[in-house]
Amino acid sequence: MSATHLLRVEAIRELMAENGWDAVIVTGTDPHCSEYPAPRWKQVEWVSGFTGEAGDLVITMDHAGLWTDTRYFIQALDQLQGSGIELHKLRVPEQVTIPEWLAAKYPEGAVVAVDSLCQSYDAISELSAMTVVGRPDMLSGLWEGRPGIPCTPIETVGEDQVGESRADKINWLRKFLLRNECDAIFLTSLDEIAWTLNVRASDIEYNPYVISYLFVSQESVKWFVLKADAEDADSDTADSFEDIAADEIEICGYDAIASALVGTMTPQDRIFVDPSTLNYEVGSLIVETYGEENVVFGQSPVVLRKAVKNEVEISAMREAHFEDGVAMEKFLYWLEQEVSQRVVTEWEASVKLSSLRAEIPGYRGDSFENISAYGPNAALPHYCTPEIGSAEIQRHGLYLVDSGGQYLFGTTDITRTVPMGPCTPLEKEDYTLVLRGMIELAMAVFPAGTAGCQVDAVARMPLWRAHRSFGHGTGHGVGFYLGVHEGPQDIRQNFNKQPLLPGMIQSDEPGLYREGLHGIRHENVILCKESAENEFGRFLEFETLTLCHIDTDPVERELMSQEELDWLNAYNERVYETIGPALNPEMRRWLRNKTAMIL
Amino acid sequence: MSATHLLRVEAIRELMAENGWDAVIVTGTDPHCSEYPAPRWKQVEWVSGFTGEAGDLVITMDHAGLWTDTRYFIQALDQLQGSGIELHKLRVPEQVTIPEWLAAKYPEGAVVAVDSLCQSYDAISELSAMTVVGRPDMLSGLWEGRPGIPCTPIETVGEDQVGESRADKINWLRKFLLRNECDAIFLTSLDEIAWTLNVRASDIEYNPYVISYLFVSQESVKWFVLKADAEDADSDTADSFEDIAADEIEICGYDAIASALVGTMTPQDRIFVDPSTLNYEVGSLIVETYGEENVVFGQSPVVLRKAVKNEVEISAMREAHFEDGVAMEKFLYWLEQEVSQRVVTEWEASVKLSSLRAEIPGYRGDSFENISAYGPNAALPHYCTPEIGSAEIQRHGLYLVDSGGQYLFGTTDITRTVPMGPCTPLEKEDYTLVLRGMIELAMAVFPAGTAGCQVDAVARMPLWRAHRSFGHGTGHGVGFYLGVHEGPQDIRQNFNKQPLLPGMIQSDEPGLYREGLHGIRHENVILCKESAENEFGRFLEFETLTLCHIDTDPVERELMSQEELDWLNAYNERVYETIGPALNPEMRRWLRNKTAMIL
Repeated sequence: MSATHLLRVEAIRELMAENGWDAVIVTGTDPHCSEYPAPRWKQVEWVSGFTGEAGDLVITMDHAGLWTDTRYFIQALDQLQGSGIELHKLRVPEQVTIPEWLAAKYPEGAVVAVDSLCQSYDAISELSAMTVVGRPDMLSGLWEGRPGIPCTPIETVGEDQVGESRADKINWLRKFLLRNECDAIFLTSLDEIAWTLNVRASDIEYNPYVISYLFVSQESVKWFVLKADAEDADSDTADSFEDIAADEIEICGYDAIASALVGTMTPQDRIFVDPSTLNYEVGSLIVETYGEENVVFGQSPVVLRKAVKNEVEISAMREAHFEDGVAMEKFLYWLEQEVSQRVVTEWEASVKLSSLRAEIPGYRGDSFENISAYGPNAALPHYCTPEIGSAEIQRHGLYLVDSGGQYLFGTTDITRTVPMGPCTPLEKEDYTLVLRGMIELAMAVFPAGTAGCQVDAVARMPLWRAHRSFGHGTGHGVGFYLGVHEGPQDIRQNFNKQPLLPGMIQSDEPGLYREGLHGIRHENVILCKESAENEFGRFLEFETLTLCHIDTDPVERELMSQEELDWLNAYNERVYETIGPALNPEMRRWLRNKTAMIL
Repeated sequence: MSATHLLRVEAIRELMAENGWDAVIVTGTDPHCSEYPAPRWKQVEWVSGFTGEAGDLVITMDHAGLWTDTRYFIQALDQLQGSGIELHKLRVPEQVTIPEWLAAKYPEGAVVAVDSLCQSYDAISELSAMTVVGRPDMLSGLWEGRPGIPCTPIETVGEDQVGESRADKINWLRKFLLRNECDAIFLTSLDEIAWTLNVRASDIEYNPYVISYLFVSQESVKWFVLKADAEDADSDTADSFEDIAADEIEICGYDAIASALVGTMTPQDRIFVDPSTLNYEVGSLIVETYGEENVVFGQSPVVLRKAVKNEVEISAMREAHFEDGVAMEKFLYWLEQEVSQRVVTEWEASVKLSSLRAEIPGYRGDSFENISAYGPNAALPHYCTPEIGSAEIQRHGLYLVDSGGQYLFGTTDITRTVPMGPCTPLEKEDYTLVLRGMIELAMAVFPAGTAGCQVDAVARMPLWRAHRSFGHGTGHGVGFYLGVHEGPQDIRQNFNKQPLLPGMIQSDEPGLYREGLHGIRHENVILCKESAENEFGRFLEFETLTLCHIDTDPVERELMSQEELDWLNAYNERVYETIGPALNPEMRRWLRNKTAMIL
């Protein structure tokens, strides 16, 4: 592996020498600033071999470095071995970001080349001390057999499924434009486009998006979606296009975005764009075409609107979590039975779980790659279960499974840490403290206006008080049959001012990871909703949507408060009462036993 | 009262008409941006009658408004009655700040006059849409008998008292200047100057400051402190000046600051200033004199350095809290005895408490005005106990006393809410929930790097879960024989990124206020210190410095967790063991009873 990557880095250096560039930045994103790019845009992996979900490379003549965060340190050190590429740590107190590193290395400025399609307009502004050269698809000349732009069948979702028609969403966008004295908005983020047009596809694994751009003005809507090298549209896609065209939306060529943008504009038009998801290539073109004074930068209004689920979405999400819970309980039953009789690997368990989800009508795939990790493997929060040679699940200690489904009626994300037999005192203590954190957040009540970072501590304090902690967020937004990660809210130790609002759905997932020993995470999805209103103001609370029992065997009761125990017992009882009737008698008896009250 | 204030507002409007001003801003601060100004600068009170500790006025031809925060709404509505001045609420979701209000009223800009001595340089930048006219001492012409600049005896504190000599502090400042490529720093904040020079006085009530400016360069130190209209210096002050001059610090005239600044500069010198405490008058002069490119704006390095107490200060603060605790216990004993026998008013109790503190050697005054509030009066978090006609303390319900002392060896701040007899179930429940919040924060452990706003929720959650909340911060920094409020850290629902550091001392004071019924606050002062270091990193925790029992009578045990009860019992036992020996036998027996363990 590493010899290949050494050669690729050298090939990039030749390109640099030819062009007189001091540095090249290769990002792990696509022209839509997606968190998970399609294979065509896994440029970091192609250059370096690093497969983590977050990472950027910087190559200079005398250095090659990968910038990634705490989640991927162990994986990066492993995968970069022999490549000559060094790890630069992010989300640590001493972090030096790429712009900071470049500024320190080149105090007088340098020529930095980027794939301008795969850099956000925002990110470039941080490089203002450098001379930035934008080269779209810079690596295509070096990358033999580079995958094309994906183009999977497109389906539409109806107002009955998502609670709002695309015509209404476009009308709402037009009102936003009026209020903000803009003539048009250019949407670039794939989940925002899927939400606005009520369309879904599979252009990106686990993410039901259509790779495209969307232009909405008071007069017209143009969807830049047709791929130049695509086959003729399949019949599903043809039907979808017909449906969409009926709403006076023009279907345009994806590659024609440049000429189309120029052609579409009227002099003095003001256009709204979100620089955090707009790529530098198209962004520069827009600024050039419209004139800087006519480009309004801001957070896309779709981000917040999409995060606040409507009643139709909320009730569908409840249904999705019921179906998903049934699949999870079947899986946990199967796992216990099989492991007691024979050897089961992490990979086999992962495949089994996906197959159980696949039985659910409306299943559209998993919402991310299952993490099926036994023992020490679970200590890597984003462990990637290998198809060949994955670990055997033993009859002792802890097995962690983090997984989710994409359904026509919602998206799920759940982690259970399962005792496979006797556990050590440390495993039990860690299991209990992490569980306390999850329960404390689930029970939280807070005034309207409170942001996630302002309640995050309650999920961490049980661990902190035992001098333990975890390095990831406690919660991320979850989309509705969209990305399993979405903003603008989150629950973590940052300074994100976005208040948690009724209708927002997010995860509640504290964890604890001991290298070489075990990893624990308990994750439920929670809905923010109204709690009470009185002389002290409006209060919000969470409703736990996830329905799958939490094993009480490793719980050290004396570490838990009575309130926490009461919550746990009530939750397991609720799981039994809702999921039990959907199971066969044998499984139901098993679940009755698993959900027995502890005192 | 209100007729006077109507006349004063009208007098200001005449001044406006003469000068062609659209609006006048009157702030509640002094030329050093102090939180609590001396009488000369209580301009808001002089104009409006409002005596709250935070508030600014805006007067236009057709409107007069007072901007203040949640703490003072009830008081402001009361004191502004009949003055024609309207309350504008701050720290509420719908707040409109003064710059926002002016921008909305005068979209084309307006001429806004300010007392340029009493506006921070920072605040003026928020008025950039307006034409700002700076008039130092603008109201002096209208204000007959306006008090002069205070000038109280100055004392010095030694290295043995504060752990560091002024020479070392100045050397440290000079190293800061070298690191930041500056030639000089101009300190304007009174607590920073007192800290740097190891000087104290009583120029501001409750705050042991010397009204002055301080200029430190590599070559010289100039202290602008001599008041033009002052009598000859008293002998204490003369001794202090001699002491200070021995460290090669030049004693200069306070009013001579303008000419001195111009005279002191060398062309091309770079000067560091903190625009949050620099007034607009002197700030403009500095920018004019040095040239904008030579003025470096930033947070003064003294702010953070001063907040992190050294070992000498920490051990003196422990001593201060012991002495203060003895006075508090004597007071609580006295209160219980007296109220059982006769009528005691809030004012009498307040006077008694101050007299007990005054018996402590090294006492230099109270650290703020005692809040002595019975029953519904305690529902005003910043109730001002009236000398005449204060309420009688009844033999039922709750009495709240928030007070503190300034000692040569530290500063204290404590609130106790005391049951005076039978309490209602609601009083008991509120008392217990607030106490839980205080204990949860006291028990908190958190990773190094955590900011106050990231742990604040643990103090609020017990109340929030019962759909109750309080509108003030949970904790503020406490100075060392300096201001009872200091930064840069705090513990509140904001987005202040300043981490809590070992050596920082702050309050822990959740509360609950029910208008017309009762007010509850429990306040201890807590020291941040190292807790543990392991594979998960460095952890910090708090040590409670305050030593005064917490009454367990109103505690609803079943609302508390076992951990919280354990903390409460251990704390009360610690109070008995440390304070008990300093009390006479009768009081000691009483305290033994008060600190009896509850199960």
